[in-house]
Amino acid sequence: MDLDESSLLDAVLATLDGTPDPRLKEILTTVGRHLHAAVRELRLTNREWEQAVEFLTAVGHTSDATRQEFVLLSDVLGVSMLVETINGAHAGTESTVLGPFHMVDSPARELGDSVNLIGKGQPCVITGSVRDVDGTPLSGATVDIWQCDENGFYDVQQPESQPPGNGRGLFHADDEGRFWFRTVVPSHYPIPTDGPVGALLAATRRHPYRPAHVHVIAEAPGHVPLTTHMFVADSPYLDSDAVFAVRGNLVTEFAEVTEPAEAEQYGVSVPFRHAHFDIQLARA
Amino acid sequence: MDLDESSLLDAVLATLDGTPDPRLKEILTTVGRHLHAAVRELRLTNREWEQAVEFLTAVGHTSDATRQEFVLLSDVLGVSMLVETINGAHAGTESTVLGPFHMVDSPARELGDSVNLIGKGQPCVITGSVRDVDGTPLSGATVDIWQCDENGFYDVQQPESQPPGNGRGLFHADDEGRFWFRTVVPSHYPIPTDGPVGALLAATRRHPYRPAHVHVIAEAPGHVPLTTHMFVADSPYLDSDAVFAVRGNLVTEFAEVTEPAEAEQYGVSVPFRHAHFDIQLARA
Repeated sequence: MDLDESSLLDAVLATLDGTPDPRLKEILTTVGRHLHAAVRELRLTNREWEQAVEFLTAVGHTSDATRQEFVLLSDVLGVSMLVETINGAHAGTESTVLGPFHMVDSPARELGDSVNLIGKGQPCVITGSVRDVDGTPLSGATVDIWQCDENGFYDVQQPESQPPGNGRGLFHADDEGRFWFRTVVPSHYPIPTDGPVGALLAATRRHPYRPAHVHVIAEAPGHVPLTTHMFVADSPYLDSDAVFAVRGNLVTEFAEVTEPAEAEQYGVSVPFRHAHFDIQLARA
Repeated sequence: MDLDESSLLDAVLATLDGTPDPRLKEILTTVGRHLHAAVRELRLTNREWEQAVEFLTAVGHTSDATRQEFVLLSDVLGVSMLVETINGAHAGTESTVLGPFHMVDSPARELGDSVNLIGKGQPCVITGSVRDVDGTPLSGATVDIWQCDENGFYDVQQPESQPPGNGRGLFHADDEGRFWFRTVVPSHYPIPTDGPVGALLAATRRHPYRPAHVHVIAEAPGHVPLTTHMFVADSPYLDSDAVFAVRGNLVTEFAEVTEPAEAEQYGVSVPFRHAHFDIQLARA
C-alpha cells in the first residue's frame, strides 16, 4: 500500500518469489526491471501508456495464421537479429533471422524440383551442400526453403494469385549431402507496411526494404538447426536491411549462365542464374 | 552488415535519426536500449524468443471490444500503477489504475439513480463531492462510476446474466459539487484468469485477487481528470492487490446503517451500507 516508484518495483519483484521455474523467474525479473526503468526514465504519460497499449493490441490483432506482426516488430527493432547473434555464436554457417513468413509448412519436394509454381520470373538454379564443421557430408539433412516471388511477395501474402507452397520446398540432401532445386530469383521487397509496424516505420521515416534473399532452415540429427538466408549479391539494400539481418558470409552470387550444356544438366534453358550455397552445421 | 551485439543496437538507434517527432524518437530509443539490454543480460534463447512472441500474440488475441488483456498485463507487472504514480504526483485526490474494464461508455444517470439493474446484492448508498483543491465545489463535474457486482463480475464479463451498463453510471455533480447514487457493495474478485495473463500468474504462483472497489473518473473543466478507486475498507486483499493499486487515502468505510430515517432520505430500506468519498481535483 502507498508504494512509490521504487518500492513499487520491489513489490512486483517480490510477487515472483514463489515462481517454481528459476529461468521464468529470471526472465520476468529482468523484464520487470527494464520495463519499470524505461517508464521511469521516460516519465511516460497516461496518454502515451494508452497509445502503447493500443499499438501492442493492434500488433496482436494483425497477427493471424499466415502473418506474424510481433515477429515483424521484433525484426525492425533488431531484437530478432540480437537473439540470432547471441545464439549463433558457434562453429558453422552463420544464422540470421527467421522472419515473419515461416507460418506454413513447406511442401516436401524432390531434389531438382521447381518451387516456382506460377512460371513467371527469372529462372534460377540453386545448388548447395550440408556438411558437418569437419566437412563430412550430412546425408539426408533437411533443407527447408522459402522465398518471395519476382515481385517481392510470399505465397501467403497473395492467396488469390499464388498457389499455397509457391516459393517453398522441404528437400532432403542426397548421400553426399548435396541439394539442388529450381526457382526464380527473389526480389528485394518492403516488409508489410499495411499494419502497425508499417505505421511505426513511417512515423520514423525508415524505409521498409529488405535485400533479396532465400530463407533456409537446415537440420540434421546430432547438429544444431540453422536458420539463415542466402542474400542475392547484386540486390539493393544489402547495406540497409530493414531488419538488420545481413551477414557478409551469407551474400551469394546469383551468376548469369549462358552455357547451354549447363542449362541442360539442370533441365532449364539459357539464360538462367545459378547460386551455390554450402552450409556447415555445428554439432549439438 | 556483420553487426555484433553492441553495434546492432547502434544500428537500430541510428535508423531513428530521421524521426520528426522528438518525443517518439526518445520513447523508441529508450525502449530499444532496454529491450536489447534485457535480451543481452538474459542470453535469450531462440525458443524463449518464440515463447515471448507466442505470449504477446495470445495477449493481443485475447483483447477485444470488451476485454483488454494488455492493460491487464500492464496491471499485474505494476506498470499501470507506475504510470499513475509518475503522473499523479500533484495536489488533490490520489489516482490509481484505470483497469481493463473501462471499455464501454457508462450510461448517463440522474443523481440518486441506482446502478444496480439486477436487484441482487447488499444495498449501498454512495455519496460524495467534487471540489477544487481550495475546497470550491465544482458544480457539474462529471463522475464516471463502474464496479463489479456482489459476485465480483463486471457487466461485460457476463453478457448473458447482466444487462449492459449494470454497475455503471455517468453522473453530474449538483450545484454544490455533490453526487450520490444507489448501488450494491462490490466484491473482491480475481482478475480474469482464463487468458495468457492468468497463465502467467499461475506459472508464478501469484494469486489473482483485487480488493473490493468502485472505479471513479472525475472530470471538470480547467482541472486534471482523476482516475481513481474507492476501496472498501473491510475487504480482503487490501495488502496484496494483484495490480498494486491500493492507496491508504482511497480506503473508504462502507458503514452499515440501521437508522430508518437515513434510509428514507436515500430511498432505500434498512439495513444498508453507506460510503462517502470526497474528491479534490488539481488545477490543469
